[in-house]
Amino acid sequence: MLRFGYDIGGTNIAAGVIDENNRLIAKDSVKFPRGEGTEAVIVACEALYRKILEQAGIPGNEIAGVGVAVPGSVSPETGVVIDAHNLGFHHTPLAAMLSDKLNKSVNLINDADAATLAEHRIGSLQGSRTAMLITIGTGIGGGLILNGELFRGGRGNGTEPGHMVLRNGGRHCSCGIDGCAETYCSATRLGKDGAAFGKASAKDVIEAARQGNEEALNLFRQYIDDFGSYIASIINLLDPERIAIGGGVSGAGSFLLDPLRKDVERKCFFETCPEIVVASAGNDAGIVGAGLIA
Amino acid sequence: MLRFGYDIGGTNIAAGVIDENNRLIAKDSVKFPRGEGTEAVIVACEALYRKILEQAGIPGNEIAGVGVAVPGSVSPETGVVIDAHNLGFHHTPLAAMLSDKLNKSVNLINDADAATLAEHRIGSLQGSRTAMLITIGTGIGGGLILNGELFRGGRGNGTEPGHMVLRNGGRHCSCGIDGCAETYCSATRLGKDGAAFGKASAKDVIEAARQGNEEALNLFRQYIDDFGSYIASIINLLDPERIAIGGGVSGAGSFLLDPLRKDVERKCFFETCPEIVVASAGNDAGIVGAGLIA
Repeated sequence: MLRFGYDIGGTNIAAGVIDENNRLIAKDSVKFPRGEGTEAVIVACEALYRKILEQAGIPGNEIAGVGVAVPGSVSPETGVVIDAHNLGFHHTPLAAMLSDKLNKSVNLINDADAATLAEHRIGSLQGSRTAMLITIGTGIGGGLILNGELFRGGRGNGTEPGHMVLRNGGRHCSCGIDGCAETYCSATRLGKDGAAFGKASAKDVIEAARQGNEEALNLFRQYIDDFGSYIASIINLLDPERIAIGGGVSGAGSFLLDPLRKDVERKCFFETCPEIVVASAGNDAGIVGAGLIA
Repeated sequence: MLRFGYDIGGTNIAAGVIDENNRLIAKDSVKFPRGEGTEAVIVACEALYRKILEQAGIPGNEIAGVGVAVPGSVSPETGVVIDAHNLGFHHTPLAAMLSDKLNKSVNLINDADAATLAEHRIGSLQGSRTAMLITIGTGIGGGLILNGELFRGGRGNGTEPGHMVLRNGGRHCSCGIDGCAETYCSATRLGKDGAAFGKASAKDVIEAARQGNEEALNLFRQYIDDFGSYIASIINLLDPERIAIGGGVSGAGSFLLDPLRKDVERKCFFETCPEIVVASAGNDAGIVGAGLIA
């Protein structure tokens, strides 16, 4: 049987079909109907479902179930999105609403958890029993694999690794804490600090550092020191086998990974350091992860 | 059947017998034979075993097995202490050596893990599926309960929560990192900073703060801010149900716990904050925890 996954973001709704081997065999996306209300989102989701199946020539009865990844907190048991600010969902019974339209059972998952699940099944966390995905973007997202399974938080709230404190009393984070990891290790931080010397994005800062620009190199070194301490914190607490780095910054490849590994090795309390790898499930990880829980 | 537990520390070897309800029914201790080699430790352990059983009138055949807690890294599978600096043990086959003398099967456990296990079975973490014990002393120790069981680390190295980074680039820690939680949240920190105004122990600082001493109050407030951020980091990563604080500092009771809870509530990312409680398994937690794995 096939499964259908949605990755609903504040900009686009992406969706697709995965086969028995967890491979994405059809996909498409539409703009998120921002500000038009929940019903408009459901309508857009239904239209996208029909379009993808039609384009790929897949009959509806071949779809065993549907999974939906959203950027926010969900209750998997009740199928309710508790809070997803970017989507305007608050205590929204999304699973039931969508199930009504599609005549399929619908499961919900947080988008970072979906990406982690995909990374564990088809990406660079395959085979790990204890591992973490850290996604570096505007903020920091991520998810944990514990005892070979996705860990949804001890109370079901998931994980918010960007709001571990890295420099207590430091930069103010939107969550209210001064010094969150997010304010030092996100791509946003590189862009913000890089603006002082005319490089206003993480990509530009890294490119300038690569070319030997002194200011960019200094910032990049400080970033590695912060990022390394952040990863070491997680390692020293959980002793994982592997950590995967995702998001745009991970595109810097060995220019980032080599010094980062060296920094973490120095700060890791244990005799040997876990593997630090680039996430490989790609941009469709959210769709695949959603499909996996369908 | 009864079980026998040892808590071997660099100063004393404590041991005792626990019954079917995990209650300690007999205990005693001897000085750790510092600098006299492994054989002397085994001899001391054997003598203590015979003495405790004799004093309590317990026949040896009522002891089902023996557990040993040590301050260091152990391999539970092979019964080898990999490294326990304070005891002078390095790749020491402690379980086999002790088993030879006692004619009982012997299991090993890290001492912080033993305390965590005891806290989970007979202390203030009872009934939690996801919880953490944080012990504040000279350094910081602790252990994790995940999915209702003691988590021994993803690679078997246990957890080193004192070496999560709280103020990256801050105070130098003996582990090599600048800014470990241990350098800001241990009892040692209070004593070190308190020395500037004549209060050279955590106890003295807390007592002075209680009495309204301005310098002590300032230090105490900073300590609460650091400790609160540290606990919030763990909460935001793992979303546990409960966190227990152990060690001497926890003796300050609500004078510590009330402002600490308030600080953590402010920094907790989730809608509700996990319970923060004082550890209750007491000084014998190591013996009980060792007995539990016997």
